[in-house]
Amino acid sequence: MLGSTMPTTLESLKARLADIDALHNAVGVMDWDQQCYMPQGGGEARAEHVSRLSRMSHDLTVSDETLRLADEARPESDEDAALLRIVRRDLEKATKIPSSLVEEKSRLSSLAHEQWVRARKADDFASFAPTLERLFEIAREEARHLGYTDHPYDALTDLYEEGATKNGWDAMFDTIRQPLVELVARIKESGVEPDRSFLHGDWDKGAQMEFTTMLAKAVGFDFDRGRQDTAPHPFCTNFSVGDVRLTTRFLDELTSAIFGTLHEAGHGMYEQGSPMEWDRTPLSGGVSLGVHESQSRTWENIVGRSRAFWQRYLPDLKRAFPALPDVDLDTFIKAVNRVEPSLIRVEADEVTYNLHIMVRYEAECDLLTEAVRVRDLPEYWNEKYRQYLGIVPPDNRDGCLQDVHWSGGMVGYFPTYSMGNILSYQFWGRLTADLGDPFDLIAHGDFAPILGWLREHIYRHGSYFTPEELIKRVTGEGLNAKPYLDGITAKYEGLYGLRQTVAS
Amino acid sequence: MLGSTMPTTLESLKARLADIDALHNAVGVMDWDQQCYMPQGGGEARAEHVSRLSRMSHDLTVSDETLRLADEARPESDEDAALLRIVRRDLEKATKIPSSLVEEKSRLSSLAHEQWVRARKADDFASFAPTLERLFEIAREEARHLGYTDHPYDALTDLYEEGATKNGWDAMFDTIRQPLVELVARIKESGVEPDRSFLHGDWDKGAQMEFTTMLAKAVGFDFDRGRQDTAPHPFCTNFSVGDVRLTTRFLDELTSAIFGTLHEAGHGMYEQGSPMEWDRTPLSGGVSLGVHESQSRTWENIVGRSRAFWQRYLPDLKRAFPALPDVDLDTFIKAVNRVEPSLIRVEADEVTYNLHIMVRYEAECDLLTEAVRVRDLPEYWNEKYRQYLGIVPPDNRDGCLQDVHWSGGMVGYFPTYSMGNILSYQFWGRLTADLGDPFDLIAHGDFAPILGWLREHIYRHGSYFTPEELIKRVTGEGLNAKPYLDGITAKYEGLYGLRQTVAS
Repeated sequence: MLGSTMPTTLESLKARLADIDALHNAVGVMDWDQQCYMPQGGGEARAEHVSRLSRMSHDLTVSDETLRLADEARPESDEDAALLRIVRRDLEKATKIPSSLVEEKSRLSSLAHEQWVRARKADDFASFAPTLERLFEIAREEARHLGYTDHPYDALTDLYEEGATKNGWDAMFDTIRQPLVELVARIKESGVEPDRSFLHGDWDKGAQMEFTTMLAKAVGFDFDRGRQDTAPHPFCTNFSVGDVRLTTRFLDELTSAIFGTLHEAGHGMYEQGSPMEWDRTPLSGGVSLGVHESQSRTWENIVGRSRAFWQRYLPDLKRAFPALPDVDLDTFIKAVNRVEPSLIRVEADEVTYNLHIMVRYEAECDLLTEAVRVRDLPEYWNEKYRQYLGIVPPDNRDGCLQDVHWSGGMVGYFPTYSMGNILSYQFWGRLTADLGDPFDLIAHGDFAPILGWLREHIYRHGSYFTPEELIKRVTGEGLNAKPYLDGITAKYEGLYGLRQTVAS
Repeated sequence: MLGSTMPTTLESLKARLADIDALHNAVGVMDWDQQCYMPQGGGEARAEHVSRLSRMSHDLTVSDETLRLADEARPESDEDAALLRIVRRDLEKATKIPSSLVEEKSRLSSLAHEQWVRARKADDFASFAPTLERLFEIAREEARHLGYTDHPYDALTDLYEEGATKNGWDAMFDTIRQPLVELVARIKESGVEPDRSFLHGDWDKGAQMEFTTMLAKAVGFDFDRGRQDTAPHPFCTNFSVGDVRLTTRFLDELTSAIFGTLHEAGHGMYEQGSPMEWDRTPLSGGVSLGVHESQSRTWENIVGRSRAFWQRYLPDLKRAFPALPDVDLDTFIKAVNRVEPSLIRVEADEVTYNLHIMVRYEAECDLLTEAVRVRDLPEYWNEKYRQYLGIVPPDNRDGCLQDVHWSGGMVGYFPTYSMGNILSYQFWGRLTADLGDPFDLIAHGDFAPILGWLREHIYRHGSYFTPEELIKRVTGEGLNAKPYLDGITAKYEGLYGLRQTVAS
């Protein structure tokens, strides 16, 4: 065209990344629609459309032209340098794994998901075992292609949490394992069993939607740049910085949708806090699964399950749900923080949650190295539950078949949940040091200073820094479990009237 | 891969068409989401994503490889031959227009839409005139590139209705112009002015949604393969044969959402009736705008505005809306069929509707040939309204600025609305000849035989035949306005108590 100049290599690269982003986004919108609104008759065509768009996106990503542009592009700013770092890292990983393996994994995990659903329903581990065996073989092959020094787990977990290694996770779990097991034991020995039966009932879904939307709005989720819908499983997805979607589900326990919404709103506010100028680029959005989870857990657990939060909102809750018995704040707080060893991770309380993660982490490391065979997984799993939680699953449905991750070939993901729990308390410690007692603010429903601090120190950085760099910038140190252990120990000693210990 | 055989040229072509379909579909889902659910903050990124996906789809369509495959592919069945005919026709058109013109039109019409919205709001035709001028220049250039024998309009209208020409439209309008003008005059002279004030009110939106969903279900729209949402403008879109989406809006006139829903359900049932085995191919779905509109008008006007329909549903309507006065069937039917020359096409009744279309058709033919200049359009428009409808718009907002089409560069589209009206009566005549009096069925809410006939004769053929071939197969003749003129003359003579004429 007359008057136009040739784009630089960097500009050409950015244009390709924008095309890839558009394809990703199309898949994202289609997935959201499928979970929230799509009629059942749309499933077959939707699967076909999504698979074609995913293939186009993959082809464009690993094309010779994209690789050349990424190789030759020269940064013109610090932001460009950060962007190039991310792009090159992603491309290196994407090109190391042969297309044939990508395709086999994609085909197998689609099949495996159906098999897993059936096997779980029928409590039939044996029918799923051969596929799970093959999925772990693929994981081993992936690790081999990606390369590692110490342990194949390093190669895989780095896909979910940049810089993470098995050694790092081991150190993290070694720090929290014993204190958590002991805290659970002390709580059990206390004999205190808070009543939470009053939370159960046939609660009106419309009223639940209204109340949870009010809370999401109150804590700072921006509904001009997002929305909330219902879906069978709660999740958060985003199509741009200006369009972040939460979903909520309504169970017969009144607080399930409330804490679920605060959790997803935490993810959502992180995405909404990313700079507009990075929208639709790899610099935009949450930096890693662990850091993301720290934000969902902050709003769900530290804020949402606090006495201060319910000091502010329990009267509103009672007004919105007149059938709720007129319990006092103390009873309510004890109910929503009740610690109870249970079988199901997603329903676990804040104290036992990481013990569930440890079982999975240890299982997948041992499956990867074939220290344990897939056919022996149920026994292995049950023994770990006995050891860490003091209970044994009566079947595999609520045992080793409960989570979706492995059927999707995701190995190395689980520890990021624990990292999020730990990190939420670590960040909260810095926030408290800067703001003074944030629970004073929470008790008045004044969340803006808290959200403002998180935006300033975490959200506005998008994916500019590595997770390690970001954690260092915010906390002045690496991942450190002490604030988490101190925090939950103090919280639950108080709630359960335990003799205070000196935190180790 | 081992054991796999090389795909044939035809198979390779079909794979490319499936990729193009996936991209189209992504744009379709994003557009639906934008109109139904997207938060305002998502607009900018959505526009960027849609524009990139549209470009990818266009590039893939007109790529050398697609052209080569379409050229070299050999049909292996009658269906393949029909598919190749459609593909080659589309490609021929797509490649005749230079990319630079496609791009300019796309950019300009995006800008023009915003200008049009502002100009209409401010009743400021002059601010929109230069852009409209350029849009008609582009239309002239498009026509020149596409080629035509008699009139540039032929090249453009064929994009919306295969095989249509200006001569054909002229003949169609010449047949209906005078009878319609006369019928409107006779109705006016009758002095009868049915009361429809009782339809106005602040009707509950939830109850309207429930009632319109019930009706859509009753006439045969399949909610396992579709859904209904609310949107500012009613429309129907589909992502596959198994996933067809209707939208409805709620105004203060009770029947607006009802007839709007029946209209969109008519479009929707046509799409749902396309064969599953053609899903995601160019053979799937409605064959042309005119034939599509015939189905929406059948269900909206012939079925939905009939006495038989309300004989069945007026009691239900009164139960659903207790605030509705207890009017009798006769009063109700006269109200929903009231004929009244008005300024706004989309709110026009069944008799005056085509007069609105004629004004636009004549205007766009004359603008295209520069028989009238854009700056003189308001005067031209108002004179046509005086002549055809006996009223003169007091401003351009409700005059020549009212429709969106020209701001999108769509010239040649309007006559398909009239074709749909005419065709709906023509098809209905054949249906009546085959089924006996369909109004007996309608009075009992038994729509299955009617839908079954339409599926068998029209819907199941998808786009296999050309529109002309399909009309010939169904009716044994070409487009013929006599059944329409006879039908509405008899209907409105009855409703308005006019002296009966012998239909010409």
